[in-house]
Amino acid sequence: MNLLLLTPEDFLSGDSVRVSGFRARHIIKVLRAKVGDPLRCGLLGGDTGRGQITDISTDAVSLRVTLDTPPPAKLPLTLLLALPRPKMARRTLRAATELGVSRIILLNSQRVDKSYWQSPLVDEAHLHAAMIEGLEQSGDTILPELQRARGFKPFVEDRLPALLSGKTGLLAHPYSAATAPTGITGNCLLAIGPEGGFIPYELEKLEAAGLQSFTLGPRILKVETAVSAIIGRLFL
Amino acid sequence: MNLLLLTPEDFLSGDSVRVSGFRARHIIKVLRAKVGDPLRCGLLGGDTGRGQITDISTDAVSLRVTLDTPPPAKLPLTLLLALPRPKMARRTLRAATELGVSRIILLNSQRVDKSYWQSPLVDEAHLHAAMIEGLEQSGDTILPELQRARGFKPFVEDRLPALLSGKTGLLAHPYSAATAPTGITGNCLLAIGPEGGFIPYELEKLEAAGLQSFTLGPRILKVETAVSAIIGRLFL
Repeated sequence: MNLLLLTPEDFLSGDSVRVSGFRARHIIKVLRAKVGDPLRCGLLGGDTGRGQITDISTDAVSLRVTLDTPPPAKLPLTLLLALPRPKMARRTLRAATELGVSRIILLNSQRVDKSYWQSPLVDEAHLHAAMIEGLEQSGDTILPELQRARGFKPFVEDRLPALLSGKTGLLAHPYSAATAPTGITGNCLLAIGPEGGFIPYELEKLEAAGLQSFTLGPRILKVETAVSAIIGRLFL
Repeated sequence: MNLLLLTPEDFLSGDSVRVSGFRARHIIKVLRAKVGDPLRCGLLGGDTGRGQITDISTDAVSLRVTLDTPPPAKLPLTLLLALPRPKMARRTLRAATELGVSRIILLNSQRVDKSYWQSPLVDEAHLHAAMIEGLEQSGDTILPELQRARGFKPFVEDRLPALLSGKTGLLAHPYSAATAPTGITGNCLLAIGPEGGFIPYELEKLEAAGLQSFTLGPRILKVETAVSAIIGRLFL
């Protein structure tokens, strides 16, 4: 936790804050902070800044905070991600959030097991928690916008064309012949398929909608590795 | 598992192979393979190719294999990595292996907790298993060379200069002023610090040895995210 993420409910008055539960225990036990110590803070959805610890009890920490600095800029990137295996979804969304992705759309695909959508590990609460972890890690305060597209065809036919307006549309595919572009600066939508890749019908539909496919070479990467490596390749 | 990794002990005769234990259970229960099914195979340290399942029993799978294709090329990259927290070391080494890193050197640093080096999670067996997972994922057969440098100063003064000979030396550091290079093609040594970064003394020593520092921007990334994103940025 490189940033203590605050919500309006944590504020007692103007600059006086009190956190309890998990965050307090983390400050006390992991960071081993003491009264007087500084701590980087941020308001969820708002500015970042510094806090100073004014009191520590068994399960609560009080701080005085000054929040006057905007969070780091987001990448102008929409990540269109075939729903990963539930255990990997959490880490993948955390990593995408760390890296500054603006919007994440979880997409169905022939090779996404139907049971994945029912898993509690990919419900709103779990994925919200994963993205919060990503913000706390990277010093950000703005959650990515998270959407779900459980119908592949209606999404690609009805919603994708409008989403692509004004954006470079890219599709990472192991068996594409093209190499990856670099130094993308404008708005971009990046599609990453499931383990095993999109099926040929899906590839055709995505390309027909305007996505250009590219390959990262012959290695098949885990989705969490692929997301970080491709974003590094395209944006960093 | 995208590649069934074989060792010489698995061979009954020329092209006849029998695997048991974890690998057999994975083929039977996860891949749900049947007699006659094809399976991508590779010999640890050798060629890759195809196998065909000839027999399945409760806990063993027999195959006939043809191994005639070299594994994917490695990246000409030595990763000099401050020893991560043990829980993250496994995932970080697996990801580095997936991406094709040739050599990984685990380095001590002021901000590496002394207890990390004693953890069973970073012993030879655990890290070997993590790298094997990376090979099975990415379809590779060549393990990265793994070294440990438990003394920062002797390593940087006595071993690093020779290691850097003929290589571009880079150091990812959150607070550097320089931006990352791209499209590295020659041999490279890349240093990535601990959570919290190398301390100023360590930075000075690494830069004096010939590493050029660069930043990925204001976000502080988890080491596993950083490794994948930086390798993507530099090499893919």
